[in-house]
Amino acid sequence: MNKQVLEEGKQLNLQFDKRGGLIPVIVQNSESKEILMLGYANRQAFEKTVSSGMATFWSTSRKQIWTKGETSGDYLLVDKILVDCDQDSIIYQVTMQGSGACHTKNNRGNTRKSCFYREYQGSKDSLENIDP
Amino acid sequence: MNKQVLEEGKQLNLQFDKRGGLIPVIVQNSESKEILMLGYANRQAFEKTVSSGMATFWSTSRKQIWTKGETSGDYLLVDKILVDCDQDSIIYQVTMQGSGACHTKNNRGNTRKSCFYREYQGSKDSLENIDP
Repeated sequence: MNKQVLEEGKQLNLQFDKRGGLIPVIVQNSESKEILMLGYANRQAFEKTVSSGMATFWSTSRKQIWTKGETSGDYLLVDKILVDCDQDSIIYQVTMQGSGACHTKNNRGNTRKSCFYREYQGSKDSLENIDP
Repeated sequence: MNKQVLEEGKQLNLQFDKRGGLIPVIVQNSESKEILMLGYANRQAFEKTVSSGMATFWSTSRKQIWTKGETSGDYLLVDKILVDCDQDSIIYQVTMQGSGACHTKNNRGNTRKSCFYREYQGSKDSLENIDP
């Protein structure tokens, strides 16, 4: 596809084939703008997200389609889907059905809201937990 | 590496080898929390980012290390680096040196701030430009 059409056109043409059938999906809280997680979508996962309104991914570990929340009940309701210039990454802006988007739990036993709960400290070459 | 150590430890152990030597890097405006772009880093790009303080990537199209802004002057100064549970994706939280992080320009001839300037409209199966 022509670069100009890809970047400026109104036609969706997600570039699944550029990276082995998968594109990265950034999941962002619609209100707070906090980034909750990063997953991957193939065409089927994207289409299921659009038709169901619930954030759906390709699980690269389990090798299957996976709707976030199908076991925990913590669905991510998709408010907006944003597409980047090259059409090879997307954002799901979501409203959280539950309290957490991560599969890990903090010290208080609560599911962590975001998967990005550690900050890298270059000076110490170590990770500091910002949701302990 | 043990899953518990990977998820809860203080040791940085980015999983470059899981996906061909590259991990996705989300670039987010530190103040507004707007997502500006998604790039990729290999170990060298990550280390250069840490040592220089400027967001650096592996360009998958040009197959080379690339510090954003080295041609345009629009450097992205890295305030924080956040690491996810699986240590296979990261966030650079940045302060923008210039006005735009995208290589495209809007109708007014200005470099677009974010690469995510289009919203997918499922009902019409088309893209709407939100920074025309």
